[in-house]
Amino acid sequence: MSLLVTGSIGLDTLETPAGVRQDVIGGSAIYFSYAASFFTPVRLVGVVGEDHPRQLFNVFEGRDVDTGGIEVRKGSKTFRWHGSYVKDMNEAVTVEVDLNVLAERAPKIPASFLDSKYVFLANTHPALQQEMLASLKSPKLIVADTMNLWIQTQQADLRKLLTKVHGFVLNDGEARLLTEEKNLIAAARQVLKMGPKFVVIKKGEHGCLMMSDRGTFVLPAFPAEKVVDPTGAGDSFAGGMMGYLATQGGAVSAATLKRALAYGTVVASYTIADFSLDAIRRADREQIDERWHEFKTAMSF
Amino acid sequence: MSLLVTGSIGLDTLETPAGVRQDVIGGSAIYFSYAASFFTPVRLVGVVGEDHPRQLFNVFEGRDVDTGGIEVRKGSKTFRWHGSYVKDMNEAVTVEVDLNVLAERAPKIPASFLDSKYVFLANTHPALQQEMLASLKSPKLIVADTMNLWIQTQQADLRKLLTKVHGFVLNDGEARLLTEEKNLIAAARQVLKMGPKFVVIKKGEHGCLMMSDRGTFVLPAFPAEKVVDPTGAGDSFAGGMMGYLATQGGAVSAATLKRALAYGTVVASYTIADFSLDAIRRADREQIDERWHEFKTAMSF
Repeated sequence: MSLLVTGSIGLDTLETPAGVRQDVIGGSAIYFSYAASFFTPVRLVGVVGEDHPRQLFNVFEGRDVDTGGIEVRKGSKTFRWHGSYVKDMNEAVTVEVDLNVLAERAPKIPASFLDSKYVFLANTHPALQQEMLASLKSPKLIVADTMNLWIQTQQADLRKLLTKVHGFVLNDGEARLLTEEKNLIAAARQVLKMGPKFVVIKKGEHGCLMMSDRGTFVLPAFPAEKVVDPTGAGDSFAGGMMGYLATQGGAVSAATLKRALAYGTVVASYTIADFSLDAIRRADREQIDERWHEFKTAMSF
Repeated sequence: MSLLVTGSIGLDTLETPAGVRQDVIGGSAIYFSYAASFFTPVRLVGVVGEDHPRQLFNVFEGRDVDTGGIEVRKGSKTFRWHGSYVKDMNEAVTVEVDLNVLAERAPKIPASFLDSKYVFLANTHPALQQEMLASLKSPKLIVADTMNLWIQTQQADLRKLLTKVHGFVLNDGEARLLTEEKNLIAAARQVLKMGPKFVVIKKGEHGCLMMSDRGTFVLPAFPAEKVVDPTGAGDSFAGGMMGYLATQGGAVSAATLKRALAYGTVVASYTIADFSLDAIRRADREQIDERWHEFKTAMSF
């Protein structure tokens, strides 16, 4: 049930109405890996500079995350992001971003990872996503994420990638940008025409929308009264979703996908309750299952 | 199972990306009555001027809506609203509004309506809402709506009203305005402290949130690809919800409220598919039940 993730590892500075944190561990691959590891063993591929977060190698202590795919590149600097949610908890304002090592060559996937069956290509340049994908031997379920930057500047590459993945995860603004459709149902339908078997549109505090040829599923976010820091919610959501799908042999029936999205929703609800990984590190699988059942009961009528 | 509604009856001019309609029938009580009449007999109380919409008395033909509470006031003019959704389908811009007869005295509730058990006080001045409520003999379930104007200018009266109702329906912006809470769960909790047993916060295309002392329920909107005119969606939602609750003897257990909110959601999904009442008039109870079951199945995981 090997789940491979490639994505960013970063040093985040975060401002929210609840306070400020400087140089804490972040990045899509970090949140994803932590979230997915509640469900299945994770293989993490990413690159940092010599100034990498102190917690990088002990944050996964006691968890089934293989960090053998993290390259610490000499002479390079770690990706840094400074974001603020002070004005709007649902949308970060980027105060500063330094791509640093992310602007260099991609990390190499270790030979021992090349047999991974389940793959999540977290947001990075779509040409790199394709390159990493091409090196894998026999992936069974491939899901990718992206961001507005690539939609705007590398759409040809992104569209090529979309013909090679089973699932695609993006947020509402990105879906509108990619398809030029305001209505999200219409946008999801357009994305399906680009290749993926299923698409998940994340709507932040408003939950998510999934569409496949089997139908459409909408799920609200878990009702959260205390949101401290939304950073990593989308990546935790994807991690919970993919982690669960990996335990199901990569099946993407409508029923399995729904349960997976609900797991993603629940895992994300832990992430946002504190800064960085602080809240999700306090959760365990039993609590997640309990909240999942609570959510399922609350959602049924 | 007599369900009384008091609210506005208007002549609407509507602009949406799908087109323009002039002087079509609208108003909260109209949408509410049509929606509720799929479930239960409705008693409609409202006031119009001599220039009332031509369709006013035949739009309910063949439906169990008692229009005996509509006063056609001589020398007065009907309420008019001109709204545009061209920029944002989720929020109308008011181009022009003429309160006309709504700025005069309230309509009188006919004596034959005074024994109504279920009451929906659609949006109007909270002092008038209280006055109408006071004239009823033994209401069993009272639910009220409001708008930002009254929250801003008549909050003392509104708060008095809130101590006298069982349920309160408002949209997300109004909930934030009334409670000064940005987080909607926190806002709902504040509203409950003001008196109602349950509160429903409508979030437009993002569905709704219900809170009572029994728990919190979030429901997405029915996934709609074709939204022609969102006018009346909230009132249709309330009509479907109250219509169903009336058939359940006014019980407001968590389970009954959830089913009621799902009916409201489904009925609203018809309203928005065309201008004014055009789409909801083409629906029948069988279709509504079918879509309700489809929604229930789609929502369960």
